[in-house]
Amino acid sequence: MFQFANVSKKTLLSNSAFAARRMLTAQAVVFTEHGEPKDVLSTQTYTIDENNLAATEVVVRTLGAPVNPSDINQIQGVYPSQPEKTTALGTSAPSAVAGNEGLFEVLHVGKDVTGFAPGDWAVPTSVNMGTWRTHALWDEEQIMKVPNPAQSQERGKTPLTIAQGATLSVNPLTAYLMLTNYVKLRPGKDWFIQNGGNSAVGKFASQMAKLLGFNSLSVIRDRPNLEEVATELREKYGATKVITEEQNSSREFSAEVKSWLKETGGEIRLAMNCVGGKSSTAVARKLSPNGIMLTYGGMSYQPVILPTSLHIFKNITSAGFWVTQLLKGNPELKRDTMDRVIAWYEAGELVDSPSIEKKYEGDLAETFKRAVADSKDGKQIVTF
Amino acid sequence: MFQFANVSKKTLLSNSAFAARRMLTAQAVVFTEHGEPKDVLSTQTYTIDENNLAATEVVVRTLGAPVNPSDINQIQGVYPSQPEKTTALGTSAPSAVAGNEGLFEVLHVGKDVTGFAPGDWAVPTSVNMGTWRTHALWDEEQIMKVPNPAQSQERGKTPLTIAQGATLSVNPLTAYLMLTNYVKLRPGKDWFIQNGGNSAVGKFASQMAKLLGFNSLSVIRDRPNLEEVATELREKYGATKVITEEQNSSREFSAEVKSWLKETGGEIRLAMNCVGGKSSTAVARKLSPNGIMLTYGGMSYQPVILPTSLHIFKNITSAGFWVTQLLKGNPELKRDTMDRVIAWYEAGELVDSPSIEKKYEGDLAETFKRAVADSKDGKQIVTF
Repeated sequence: MFQFANVSKKTLLSNSAFAARRMLTAQAVVFTEHGEPKDVLSTQTYTIDENNLAATEVVVRTLGAPVNPSDINQIQGVYPSQPEKTTALGTSAPSAVAGNEGLFEVLHVGKDVTGFAPGDWAVPTSVNMGTWRTHALWDEEQIMKVPNPAQSQERGKTPLTIAQGATLSVNPLTAYLMLTNYVKLRPGKDWFIQNGGNSAVGKFASQMAKLLGFNSLSVIRDRPNLEEVATELREKYGATKVITEEQNSSREFSAEVKSWLKETGGEIRLAMNCVGGKSSTAVARKLSPNGIMLTYGGMSYQPVILPTSLHIFKNITSAGFWVTQLLKGNPELKRDTMDRVIAWYEAGELVDSPSIEKKYEGDLAETFKRAVADSKDGKQIVTF
Repeated sequence: MFQFANVSKKTLLSNSAFAARRMLTAQAVVFTEHGEPKDVLSTQTYTIDENNLAATEVVVRTLGAPVNPSDINQIQGVYPSQPEKTTALGTSAPSAVAGNEGLFEVLHVGKDVTGFAPGDWAVPTSVNMGTWRTHALWDEEQIMKVPNPAQSQERGKTPLTIAQGATLSVNPLTAYLMLTNYVKLRPGKDWFIQNGGNSAVGKFASQMAKLLGFNSLSVIRDRPNLEEVATELREKYGATKVITEEQNSSREFSAEVKSWLKETGGEIRLAMNCVGGKSSTAVARKLSPNGIMLTYGGMSYQPVILPTSLHIFKNITSAGFWVTQLLKGNPELKRDTMDRVIAWYEAGELVDSPSIEKKYEGDLAETFKRAVADSKDGKQIVTF
């Protein structure tokens, strides 16, 4: 709250009117204490002085910001990567802006900004920047360019949707980097196996594997419409084979899997685990000697369980994957990986997982709270 | 069984007398079927023609051969590394000679053998050569030289004991390679943690760590004479700190461990697991970010259990260690590692774990069966 002492009412009004021209009123969803999003999130209004940008600053407006499980965990305080809490936005207690992923449009640029022009699209360079807001004032190094629809069309390409741009940084990068950064799969021959085959990352991984010439074995839970889901995973999301957790755990069924490997003359050299428990044991058992299992989630809330003999006699390695940590301090890898994903989107070769757009209406924090509550129905993206 | 048709009794006797001079009668412990050693092991007598060695062949006599748990598992058929079964020793059904480790003295060498002279000591280059025997005829490439007592004394060094030579290839190499081949511990600062701190490998690992300047945290099971065992591990076997499984699993006690790390300014970057189950979870939790756990045994018969968060957020890697596989096709690494261990033994800086020598008496297979049965009392070494 600014104090205007010794200023006549007329001057104040006149100053205010002037300020309205150059001060952008922005809103952000902030939390000062950790807890359930419905309890701790609130809307903070603040202003961005568009006419006094530092030389390398940019002003952006938000096009879309998703609700990721890790965003919720961060607000709850159970996620190891946390934004710094400050009073920069004028909150009485130090607060942080929620959200880690989003798509932004550049509105204004400082005089020395060379990488961006108004109208460009961008995503955050790193995490913990607070994407659940209407606008932001950032340094140009804090964002990375993504082609806007006009730029894609100019090159005769299919534009990215807002949903694709807003969810570019986490799931597709996770899938691509797990698939390419650890084991050299031989195109046309080798396989990877994944539980969570019907998850967002799982669908990206099977599609990308197909684009790269690798075979995929996607494990999903049994369900009433199993054949329908399996068909979609094979036909729309590129999975080579889809099996159930029960089949994956069955010794008899492993003969069937071996016959598939024989057909391609390849091996299962990589496993992606986002479930844990006996599912992780079963996918690890499918690996060829010297294979590696990457764990990037634990949906069953069970630990990774690995028989000693797999470690000793098959030399199976179990490692973790966290896109946040891998890309921290490695913007080149992020840039290269994003460009690969963007090229596939622009060529119409990659399908993003379904998401539900929730238009920002009324109060910003309330909009995001509704999106958090509705996350059980599918990935929520708040659009502006 | 040879047939001597059309030979007079006199000629046969004369030939036999001649053969006695140049044919060495050897015995080996063989198995044709897998099963419990007491049921499937038998003694096979065969001859080695010492006067007709091929150019690069050597004849050796056995000085000592230990009973390792993996030898027993191999006989039982539950070990993935298996010797080829042949009728070379004259068994009616194809058989294999038991045993994988041993110390041998060279008796005779072929005319082109340059690496060995009679009287030299040697150990097998690889596994599955069948060490439970009185003598062997091998190619010189199948054995590696070890200094005999005279050779050590000539250099003013302490000779290796037969027990040290006979157990050189598995436990000390396992300890040294786990300690040095995966993580670069910083001398004077860093730590490794191990369960099975009172095992043979554990005692080698803590001693070698001390010799290399690393700190060790040895976890052992609670027992009535805990303080006595802990004192011996610290004072005789070089352990920096010894704690119980209960302390290792206790959250309160981890503050104590952290204070030890603080004193040295180091981290626990390496874990060695030969237990599995919750013990493996507890040692993995002690690792610093990016640490690695090597599993080389599973004494609890429980799998390795790793919380998902250790993989994802601390980037802990869980891998296997099997000295057999690591050294397969890498005799240089075996030679270098053995030389390092031999130098420590000769300098009197390394103590081998206690073992019980069992003299070959009566039938060879029966001697080894008694050694297998007595393995519960401690490591058995059959001497000749």
